[in-house]
Amino acid sequence: MMEKESLWNRYREQLIRSREGQLDLWLDFSRMGVASGWLREMEAPCQRAFRELGRLEAGEKVNEDEDRMVGHYWLRDPDMAPTPELREEIIEGLEAAKAFASRVHRGEVRPPHAEQFRKLLCVGIGGSALGPQLVGDALASFPALQTWFLDNTDPDGIDRVLRRIGLQGLAETLVVVTSKSGGTPETRNGMLEVRAAYEAAGLEFAAHAVAITGPGSQLDKVAVAEGWIARFPMADWVGGRTSVMSVVGLVPAALQGVDVDAFLAGARAMDRRTRSPETVRNPAMLLALMWHFAGNGRGEKDMVVLPYKDRLVLFSKYLQQLVMESLGKEFELGNQKRVCQGLAVYGNKGSTDQHAYVQQLRDGVNNFFAVFLEVRQDREGASLVVDEANGATSGDYLQGFLRGTRAALAENGRQSITISVPVVDAFNLGALIALFERAVTLYAFLVNINAYHQPGVEAGKKAAGTFLLLMERVRRHLRAHPGEPFSAEALAASLGADPENVHHILVHLASNGAAWMTAGDDPAADRFTAPA
Amino acid sequence: MMEKESLWNRYREQLIRSREGQLDLWLDFSRMGVASGWLREMEAPCQRAFRELGRLEAGEKVNEDEDRMVGHYWLRDPDMAPTPELREEIIEGLEAAKAFASRVHRGEVRPPHAEQFRKLLCVGIGGSALGPQLVGDALASFPALQTWFLDNTDPDGIDRVLRRIGLQGLAETLVVVTSKSGGTPETRNGMLEVRAAYEAAGLEFAAHAVAITGPGSQLDKVAVAEGWIARFPMADWVGGRTSVMSVVGLVPAALQGVDVDAFLAGARAMDRRTRSPETVRNPAMLLALMWHFAGNGRGEKDMVVLPYKDRLVLFSKYLQQLVMESLGKEFELGNQKRVCQGLAVYGNKGSTDQHAYVQQLRDGVNNFFAVFLEVRQDREGASLVVDEANGATSGDYLQGFLRGTRAALAENGRQSITISVPVVDAFNLGALIALFERAVTLYAFLVNINAYHQPGVEAGKKAAGTFLLLMERVRRHLRAHPGEPFSAEALAASLGADPENVHHILVHLASNGAAWMTAGDDPAADRFTAPA
Repeated sequence: MMEKESLWNRYREQLIRSREGQLDLWLDFSRMGVASGWLREMEAPCQRAFRELGRLEAGEKVNEDEDRMVGHYWLRDPDMAPTPELREEIIEGLEAAKAFASRVHRGEVRPPHAEQFRKLLCVGIGGSALGPQLVGDALASFPALQTWFLDNTDPDGIDRVLRRIGLQGLAETLVVVTSKSGGTPETRNGMLEVRAAYEAAGLEFAAHAVAITGPGSQLDKVAVAEGWIARFPMADWVGGRTSVMSVVGLVPAALQGVDVDAFLAGARAMDRRTRSPETVRNPAMLLALMWHFAGNGRGEKDMVVLPYKDRLVLFSKYLQQLVMESLGKEFELGNQKRVCQGLAVYGNKGSTDQHAYVQQLRDGVNNFFAVFLEVRQDREGASLVVDEANGATSGDYLQGFLRGTRAALAENGRQSITISVPVVDAFNLGALIALFERAVTLYAFLVNINAYHQPGVEAGKKAAGTFLLLMERVRRHLRAHPGEPFSAEALAASLGADPENVHHILVHLASNGAAWMTAGDDPAADRFTAPA
Repeated sequence: MMEKESLWNRYREQLIRSREGQLDLWLDFSRMGVASGWLREMEAPCQRAFRELGRLEAGEKVNEDEDRMVGHYWLRDPDMAPTPELREEIIEGLEAAKAFASRVHRGEVRPPHAEQFRKLLCVGIGGSALGPQLVGDALASFPALQTWFLDNTDPDGIDRVLRRIGLQGLAETLVVVTSKSGGTPETRNGMLEVRAAYEAAGLEFAAHAVAITGPGSQLDKVAVAEGWIARFPMADWVGGRTSVMSVVGLVPAALQGVDVDAFLAGARAMDRRTRSPETVRNPAMLLALMWHFAGNGRGEKDMVVLPYKDRLVLFSKYLQQLVMESLGKEFELGNQKRVCQGLAVYGNKGSTDQHAYVQQLRDGVNNFFAVFLEVRQDREGASLVVDEANGATSGDYLQGFLRGTRAALAENGRQSITISVPVVDAFNLGALIALFERAVTLYAFLVNINAYHQPGVEAGKKAAGTFLLLMERVRRHLRAHPGEPFSAEALAASLGADPENVHHILVHLASNGAAWMTAGDDPAADRFTAPA
């Protein structure tokens, strides 16, 4: 336990305030237990990381495996883009998003059978959903268009959203389909299901549909062929998890009425602030360093993100993708050394989570560090005193719980960082996202991994593809032998396939009307029969 | 890598199907890599745990620190309750919840200035929010009453919910305030803010309010004094995180139109199935054993919960509380051996999360095991073929992604369990909750901790209380010296307080209109002045 005096001095030293123009973000790492000696040791790798970040921002292809530039930092500062063409492309994307949204709001772009678009259905997954979901929930409490998401290939989930929108609702819904490759199956399936719902309602889908996709992609071709309302091109140098400031995030944000210019300005301000290679004044580098310190540069501790503000509840989930998909890598960059890196992220919001898992954080397995996120302004307008004994408001309580929990964790040797912003608005959300994006980039350089690919996802997709082809063969076999009972083993032998996979498929088909199942004592004893 | 044949045999052996009456839940632990020898070694501790669970269910006080019985298993099987009085109390609670909901639905209980209650606002936190949120989202897609939650003391969050309900909406809103002790500050603050909103709207709060609380609690007294519509008593032998089958969960569920009898029946069926001390056929014990195996009985691996079904997205969050608050404990039961136990839980849903952090799961740091949750029925009604090439539907894809990801993880040495239910309905949700509740109880016995208290939460609350009292002293001091600039150090010296805490307080007050802040180079140089 440190003495009070020394804690105050440590707080004075380790509270880094980035104040410049509208930017007023604070990062306090006084409860991480970092000694200044360690920071000095890390100075050389930090300087290397700054140089590599500089090369990345200048357009060098650091995403070697995919042979692509990494350009999300240019999106909020087009003058940084390495060519005038890219600069123009970025500015055009932003202007197009704003202009389209304003035409929709004014009713100049309107559906055939309603006066105005009043609802927005976003079809997309991963970065194409999480960014827009975060921005909408944090900034558009009363969005210009009531907004829904289809971010999965769950039929029941799709039905639920469509039924909530309702048949009447479809007529005034704008459907934005987002997929860079245009081939993401969840998104394609969602789009096809929505299109079928429009057709069933006697409405023309194309007159409601917008595509955000790579030029020339499968989705782009469909949109052209069918004459969709609008298409917004996605650049190949923007990855899904950093696409929230490209048209992927800007189109839904502008449609919901978010001030996208302020959003970009916040990110730009943070980028500029964190280009300075002065390690101990650079919040993005300090954040990366704290991750390194907590987990020994090997992700040995989870990051628990606790925003004390309801409208930031999705920020933890957003960071889960940004951080884990970027840092969870098997091999080092440029060689084949197996490192199995990563940084697990979870969390919802405070003080709510104090009534969920903070018990474990304080007393249980010490396998994490916390990131508290403070929003200094409680609310717009005055507050009720809710407790005469201490004159406190609801917001005073929220602050008290944040400080109390931070103290209780520290007292028991649990590490935490506290990030503080004045208010949740477009500018500050932009700044927060940029802070973490840059920390991810810098951390990846510190531990020498490629933060911009996701090779591990391919294995699962490939296995799924093989599984679906086998499913079709099983389905055909059953159809060809109606009324005949099969075991998984016998069918697998006929098809030269794995009996366990065949069993999963048979169970799935039997659960969805394509066969009848008679369960035995174990999977080998189950019998499946197609309807005669 | 295991050979295919041996994997099929392992799957045959390690797929445990609980089929009895309506229950049809499967647990597959074939991808955990458990040898049968290890299961035999654990048999003696398992038998001890079964005996202890028997004593707990018989009403013995296992929650020693709090000197309370642990009775949530009786809620769905009142005949298990240790006395006829408790049995009656449980049955009365259920009947009262159903009768009240049906009177609300029929308009017999109605608001003074609207025909019917059409909206429901639940004020509560922790178990008083997570259970009702899960049940509502999973089972009440189109709830009888449109439902909102206040589960925090965030002023902006409260304003947002109240503005969404709207002034008109308040007149037809039923407010259910839930707090066992009646003193939970977040809930009390939420209730006071809602009451103020009613008063501001010229509406009588008491005519809209319902209390779910311990008899004689502060909240109970307020409800009696003000003549609230109804009160439902909470028993002291039900903990917050296992209260979803008490009036805490049943009242909101019944109001939303959920079949609460089926919900209880599902849990009862799972309880009965898992009372059998035959370890290798008992899914709750097997789940507890897998946690033990994966984390060496010390929580060394996180549990990542991946339901492949949109309507189960909150299940992971629900389990996060149930598991982490129950198992995250500092000391062994009955002695003071410091063990810092726990099991970290996170996750959202598949296949969505495949586009977020599955990259890290497959390739990155191997600090987790996955729990896949399969729902065998895709949707009600027929499905569109979305891919002519393989004849697949959206649901086939969902199944393909689940199986593909499970295979890709296993291939890279990552462990997983797969739990499968036929459909998401009240019965199966009840069964799933009971399965995990019982696994938690059994695991706690295996590692010898008390799963029913939360002493670690007290430290944070106490620190928050001290902080709030100091805040009031700071506020008074500022008020007494208007126009006079203070530093945190000077003010702390006057008050005999910690300068860092005083600084946090001054920043908070300055951010909310009670003082003016002039920022210096470090916190000691900041100056704060109350308005003259």
